[in-house]
Amino acid sequence: MEYPNFNFKIIYKSPFSKARLGRLLTPHGSVETPAFIFCATKAAIKGATPRSMREENTQIILSNTYHLMLQPGAELVAKMGGLHQFMGWSGPMLTDSGGFQIFSLGHGSVAEEVKGRRQSSRPKSLLTINEEGATFKSYIDGKIHTLTPEKSIQVQRGLGADLIVVLDECTPFHVDKSYTEKSMYLSHLWAERSLKEFQKGPSGIQALYGITQGGVYSDLRRISADFVNSQPFFGHAVGGSLGAHKAQMAEVVEMAMEPLDPSRPVHLLGIGGMSDIFYGVEQGIDTFDCVHPTRLARHGGALVPSAVWQSIGENSKGKEHINLRNARFRDDPRPIDESCKCQTCQTMSRSYLHHLLKAGELLAMQALTLHNVHFMNRLLSSIREAIRENRLDAEKKKWVA
Amino acid sequence: MEYPNFNFKIIYKSPFSKARLGRLLTPHGSVETPAFIFCATKAAIKGATPRSMREENTQIILSNTYHLMLQPGAELVAKMGGLHQFMGWSGPMLTDSGGFQIFSLGHGSVAEEVKGRRQSSRPKSLLTINEEGATFKSYIDGKIHTLTPEKSIQVQRGLGADLIVVLDECTPFHVDKSYTEKSMYLSHLWAERSLKEFQKGPSGIQALYGITQGGVYSDLRRISADFVNSQPFFGHAVGGSLGAHKAQMAEVVEMAMEPLDPSRPVHLLGIGGMSDIFYGVEQGIDTFDCVHPTRLARHGGALVPSAVWQSIGENSKGKEHINLRNARFRDDPRPIDESCKCQTCQTMSRSYLHHLLKAGELLAMQALTLHNVHFMNRLLSSIREAIRENRLDAEKKKWVA
Repeated sequence: MEYPNFNFKIIYKSPFSKARLGRLLTPHGSVETPAFIFCATKAAIKGATPRSMREENTQIILSNTYHLMLQPGAELVAKMGGLHQFMGWSGPMLTDSGGFQIFSLGHGSVAEEVKGRRQSSRPKSLLTINEEGATFKSYIDGKIHTLTPEKSIQVQRGLGADLIVVLDECTPFHVDKSYTEKSMYLSHLWAERSLKEFQKGPSGIQALYGITQGGVYSDLRRISADFVNSQPFFGHAVGGSLGAHKAQMAEVVEMAMEPLDPSRPVHLLGIGGMSDIFYGVEQGIDTFDCVHPTRLARHGGALVPSAVWQSIGENSKGKEHINLRNARFRDDPRPIDESCKCQTCQTMSRSYLHHLLKAGELLAMQALTLHNVHFMNRLLSSIREAIRENRLDAEKKKWVA
Repeated sequence: MEYPNFNFKIIYKSPFSKARLGRLLTPHGSVETPAFIFCATKAAIKGATPRSMREENTQIILSNTYHLMLQPGAELVAKMGGLHQFMGWSGPMLTDSGGFQIFSLGHGSVAEEVKGRRQSSRPKSLLTINEEGATFKSYIDGKIHTLTPEKSIQVQRGLGADLIVVLDECTPFHVDKSYTEKSMYLSHLWAERSLKEFQKGPSGIQALYGITQGGVYSDLRRISADFVNSQPFFGHAVGGSLGAHKAQMAEVVEMAMEPLDPSRPVHLLGIGGMSDIFYGVEQGIDTFDCVHPTRLARHGGALVPSAVWQSIGENSKGKEHINLRNARFRDDPRPIDESCKCQTCQTMSRSYLHHLLKAGELLAMQALTLHNVHFMNRLLSSIREAIRENRLDAEKKKWVA
């Protein structure tokens, strides 16, 4: 299968790791990779306009099929001209399959697992999973919906993002190998049905990503990679359980990446921590997404390179952000990061941001969101430059100590 | 007394009303009048960065002394370089005296009176008023504070806005003439003390506004105007009760304006409705302020000229905004106002804004705030043009039907 109007070109490969520079071409422009994809969950970045996202150098965003199919519905978005026009974002865009939210609401999310939380406190809204698809209750009005591979592709076609993703079963990490294997084969079946439905649509408008499964088992990861490599996907996403903790995640990403076709772009779902991104880049991951940068902003956190911790006179070990609510910033006239060129760092002090947070001002969330968006784009831009100049290890030390 | 670095020049006077065009010069730039002043209550416009305020053509903003003296405190703001630097606003700025909030928390606000509400539901935090000043409890931590005329000027000096205002007693409308008269004389005494304190400060940095009192009584309004005219204020604000309802407000503004020195700029405190602004302009008011445009935005309301109501097929009589939460906008692909050049109208449909509001997205508040800010600046700009071209009555019909 061909993907007219889409292309993924590998521009440079690191001689020291699997890190690579790429250019991902879509009908809405190109993305220099490695790149970070920001989450506009309900067709909006929380706290930033599309214009300010561009001003802070954003290349690509994603929206969540699960949320949009429930509110306002894919039909409405299609009627309003598709997601790009609906939300006023003219650049490249991805939608996920909707599966992640259904399954994470049902049996706890991958993110919660990686963070060591075994149980989700959210209601169990997943009703059944069978060969046909998944049935769940809407979080908005309690109505029953069924998401099948075909339905997911149809909804994503209505939304109209450039890059779309097959439906898979997101298995939790605490299932055994037998469940993981059965689940993998179910996801492969769903992937084939997704491809079939995808091929009914017009060509050259969207490109389809397959998802590699297999949980924490290297033999299953290889089987799943062989499967997705054999199918005419444009790109791959690393799915399935990444393990119970951070150390295991690194291992699983490595075993998932090893057998994957290196000519296709690879997306790592739901990962956005700085050290995780460096690790993923070294494994050949091309794109990342996570709500972390924008969510952290709404709670007063500003992402910073390790030098900022040193400027405060503290050990930066393992710390990737400062919290502006902290009383130490009350009379600190410096910007969050003197080396940052974002709108917030150009105009606002730590003292002012501290005041805004204490006073409960909306502007605090906006200002910190702009900073964190700029930060992620600057981080990935620095990573690309470092790959090109064969000094990724040295670059990493500037960001995470 | 002279006000170096400040100037108010009347550029044109309408032959049909007391409407006038002016230019108010401050150390941070000039303001074309009539102008609207946006409320950055706690040193922040709720939902807009200083940069986006400028992009939507904002000339001048104000901050509230009451809120800032309690949080983060004038000393901190002064230490951080003053309000302009603290909040990153480099244009003209006004602070009020702090009195309005103290008195409105104590015995119900002028705004609540004009809207016909007799009782405030807020706690009675005003403890005493006497010749010395007002004693009140902080809304943040319950601590007891005393605001005197001298203290208000000292705090405003620390904050460093261009235009500052004397402390007055904001009398409610339901007091009798005898109370109003005594209160007026108290405010005159406070004004003289404010002036005396003001003159201790450096020259050429701030300019002081007096406040005309006298409630709904024309003889008292004349006495108060004679008093403020005789004092070396840079400008005047219309204070005191404006009556129990809108019709009475017009009458009171007229009787307050009639005897005021026409060479000084006049500010009408807390008024921001479209028809009220047209009325005020006809009475010679030069500046207005109100939280209405930005507060309305946070509740889903978009200010519109009367033509927008007609585009929906409804009578616009008395209506100055549409509420985007209304189900009729669910699939309306048009912008709020096709004639509007704001960032929101250039990029977002009514349908999208409706979705953002239903989904509880922060971006809804930001987008509507930008629209309402642009709208007010455009309204006042149109008013200025209409005054210059002697067609204010015709212009009014375009905005309010």
